[in-house]
Amino acid sequence: MINWTNFDALTSYDELKSLPVPSLRDELEGEKGYKRVKEYSVPMAAGLSYNYAAKKVNAQTLEALSFLAKEAQLKEKFELLYNGEIMNTGEKRRVLHQLTRGQLGSDVTADGENKRDFYKAQLEKIRAFSKKVHYGEVVNEQGRRFDTVVQVGIGGSDLGPRALYIALENWAKADNTLLMTAKFISNVDPDDAAAVLESTDLSTALFIVVSKSGTTLETLTNESFVRDALRKAGLEPSKHMLAVTSATSPMAKSPDYLAAFFMDDYIGGRYSSSSAVGGAILSLAFGYNVFERILEGAHQEDVLAANRDFYENPDMLDALIGVYERNVLGYPATAVLPYSQALSRFPAHLQQLDMESNGKSVNRFGEKVAYPTGPIIFGEPGTNGQHSFYQLLHQGTDIVPLQFVGFKASQIGTDVEIQGSSSQQKLLANVAAQIMAFALGKDDADPNKYFAGERPSSIIIGEKLTPEALGALLAHFENKVMFQGFVWNINSFDQEGVQLGKVLAKKVLSGDTDGGLKAYSELLEI
Amino acid sequence: MINWTNFDALTSYDELKSLPVPSLRDELEGEKGYKRVKEYSVPMAAGLSYNYAAKKVNAQTLEALSFLAKEAQLKEKFELLYNGEIMNTGEKRRVLHQLTRGQLGSDVTADGENKRDFYKAQLEKIRAFSKKVHYGEVVNEQGRRFDTVVQVGIGGSDLGPRALYIALENWAKADNTLLMTAKFISNVDPDDAAAVLESTDLSTALFIVVSKSGTTLETLTNESFVRDALRKAGLEPSKHMLAVTSATSPMAKSPDYLAAFFMDDYIGGRYSSSSAVGGAILSLAFGYNVFERILEGAHQEDVLAANRDFYENPDMLDALIGVYERNVLGYPATAVLPYSQALSRFPAHLQQLDMESNGKSVNRFGEKVAYPTGPIIFGEPGTNGQHSFYQLLHQGTDIVPLQFVGFKASQIGTDVEIQGSSSQQKLLANVAAQIMAFALGKDDADPNKYFAGERPSSIIIGEKLTPEALGALLAHFENKVMFQGFVWNINSFDQEGVQLGKVLAKKVLSGDTDGGLKAYSELLEI
Repeated sequence: MINWTNFDALTSYDELKSLPVPSLRDELEGEKGYKRVKEYSVPMAAGLSYNYAAKKVNAQTLEALSFLAKEAQLKEKFELLYNGEIMNTGEKRRVLHQLTRGQLGSDVTADGENKRDFYKAQLEKIRAFSKKVHYGEVVNEQGRRFDTVVQVGIGGSDLGPRALYIALENWAKADNTLLMTAKFISNVDPDDAAAVLESTDLSTALFIVVSKSGTTLETLTNESFVRDALRKAGLEPSKHMLAVTSATSPMAKSPDYLAAFFMDDYIGGRYSSSSAVGGAILSLAFGYNVFERILEGAHQEDVLAANRDFYENPDMLDALIGVYERNVLGYPATAVLPYSQALSRFPAHLQQLDMESNGKSVNRFGEKVAYPTGPIIFGEPGTNGQHSFYQLLHQGTDIVPLQFVGFKASQIGTDVEIQGSSSQQKLLANVAAQIMAFALGKDDADPNKYFAGERPSSIIIGEKLTPEALGALLAHFENKVMFQGFVWNINSFDQEGVQLGKVLAKKVLSGDTDGGLKAYSELLEI
Repeated sequence: MINWTNFDALTSYDELKSLPVPSLRDELEGEKGYKRVKEYSVPMAAGLSYNYAAKKVNAQTLEALSFLAKEAQLKEKFELLYNGEIMNTGEKRRVLHQLTRGQLGSDVTADGENKRDFYKAQLEKIRAFSKKVHYGEVVNEQGRRFDTVVQVGIGGSDLGPRALYIALENWAKADNTLLMTAKFISNVDPDDAAAVLESTDLSTALFIVVSKSGTTLETLTNESFVRDALRKAGLEPSKHMLAVTSATSPMAKSPDYLAAFFMDDYIGGRYSSSSAVGGAILSLAFGYNVFERILEGAHQEDVLAANRDFYENPDMLDALIGVYERNVLGYPATAVLPYSQALSRFPAHLQQLDMESNGKSVNRFGEKVAYPTGPIIFGEPGTNGQHSFYQLLHQGTDIVPLQFVGFKASQIGTDVEIQGSSSQQKLLANVAAQIMAFALGKDDADPNKYFAGERPSSIIIGEKLTPEALGALLAHFENKVMFQGFVWNINSFDQEGVQLGKVLAKKVLSGDTDGGLKAYSELLEI
């Protein structure tokens, strides 16, 4: 029997609030600290590990969180989800993004078909099509090979696939497997599309228009932009355009596209990177086998997320420590800080994933909750951030928990040795140093140089940012956000908060305004 | 007589806390709302205006903030600053970035020279040098013209100049004034430098190494990376390298550079875009006259910031409304949301500017303050953000004040009309709609579709993102941050919080570790 109970109605809630909060200085100094860092670590998929030694938790806190996991039935709720229950209650939809990468539970039948087979069939279409492009069987009007692929989409159709492409672009170059250059058009600002199109040889470019409904205004607008540009260049748009959409959308069977790949209502935009939304562009850019390796890493992480043992479940651990920081320690934000330039846009993806999923004020029954839900998420790669906003993180008046990511090896492998160490060693030395600096702080007679410390962080450590590791990272955060949503008893899979702005924007465009909206429209001369 | 008093010791502090907070719904609906939006607006430089109609302030709040401005002696403190007083008290330095763009106050003499003349002389050197490059008088070893310029720097030597370059790149292309392509290397992650160098024709590239001290480890490391690559390509590094540094640094008179341009200790990194740090790369990319136009816009905004009348001072208004939101309304963060793809990296610059300046816990005398100081700053361009983290902004449990920016015209001018409106109109309709959606919210029988509203925002409106407008924006936020620092009685011009991590990173690299730091070093295999 599954109970959908608000967090503050669980016994764990008061229990967690009553526990003493350990001091990081006590926990991380000396031999005790050495041991703790080695012990407070759990394997993730693809050789990654999640280390939470610098979080303000101890055996007692973890025991209470482990009890919370049971009391909130996290494992059981995840089972419901991957077995195809309608978990997106507001929109009455299943939540099946895990199925795009593997079968965790029982077969899921919906819309008269086995959904795993449906997703696999779409990926098979993508595999076959991208191979034809790479082998020169699908070519442009002049018989030349396509060398560029441009994704036209916004939100989840943009942020995740873009972050993943950037994450692997240099890895693929070093591996000689960058088959096509990928670009992205998302913003309705006409300068976005114009700049990308001007810098692209349209004759050898494929454009993937991504819209589940086939009605996303920004994307349709940018699609027109692209079609205009192709026609002006004397090219036939239908020979350059692909669609990723739902099987029932107006785009699905249109002759305007060279090919169409399908997703469905059970894949939310921000969870769609492992579906055709990410699959088409990443397979064209890197080859399908690389995309398959991302899926494998994600699936292996999903398997770990299904582990009932809290202490061996990195996604659940990360989720519940985050809940503790949000609801007991009262921190309003989390910074994501990858020490990897390749992950430069991964924080922007996580920002959507987390804030759009858990930025909610009502529970799954529509009742207002009395506790904070999803935090603000932001971040930039280290070491860049160290020379920027870390000042506030170290000495500001608010505490911001930190999520570090670091890899032992670089992707490209080119390096220099200066002052006795390589760049890669300097990069890693900095992330290790930051964790300890945030945790321990520093006493100083000069109050400007005093660091209070006790600022918690975790780190995900990997060997190298490979496709498998990237897939594992992607799934880790998806599952973390899902578990947190379960604890908060909210629906992490809808996004009603984006609708009101759309409605009002239409009013502005049709001139149907009054009051403040009319005045802003006039000031902006719309 | 200047008083350096903590904010909570001012009579304004209690006064502000005692005022009723107006309802945005009451203020912005109907005829009253129409009038308010037109009235709550103040001109900025370069044709911009700052509109604060959707902030939770009314005549009474503004009057109290105006009194706060007087009580905290903001005008007088700004005067001290631009007249050359030592305002960076911790480091005992003047704060002179305004002088790089114009003379606001009396002559400032330091280090035996007139500082305005010194900054002008550096810019004149940059003008003359960049002209020689553009006219083919300074060329590479084979007599070919340089077509690319790469900035090697981190923090303020990277974020501001990069944001400004991206802001004007398409404007310059449309204007046929993009003279050289600019690129940036910042991160000590070796993949950052390797990727930029691999995608660049080194033989026609100039590299600007930017480090005030000449000792920034990341930058020296990346400089070596560049020199290695140049030598491997059979090129003589000294024919390709420029320096921006202080006159006393080891880089200043080195024969390793083709030319060196100077800054000094009175220009903080995050305030250095209008000095040689931004001047060299922007003048090479766009021509010196474009950089001069940025300076002019910034100077005009500085002039407005010096206005004693609170109601006619956009920088002071923005600053004090921000203080009200932080210290009275208790909001922990601010989102910066430019509806302009060209400003895609401007939020990252503001993140450094604001969080590094005001992320402090002690006042200028080193005493701990008892109120929150600088907020978390984050942001992405609209409309992209609408399809991402706006869900939390609309319906999350925390309120995040918003800073919108919008321009009536696009930069490139290419556009398409879909469903009766252009992309530019859609872009602007969205920003107008969002302001009102956040402010008014929406009642709905379905609690998932209920929006509480009362979420405050401001907007800076401009005609078009030109160099002058960009300069005005840059200076606006510098001055805003400065005024907030004055109210909080903190030193906004040092950054001691970045030092501890550097010290510990050195320990890791030299193997001098124990406890937790030793364990992290082992886990990362440094």
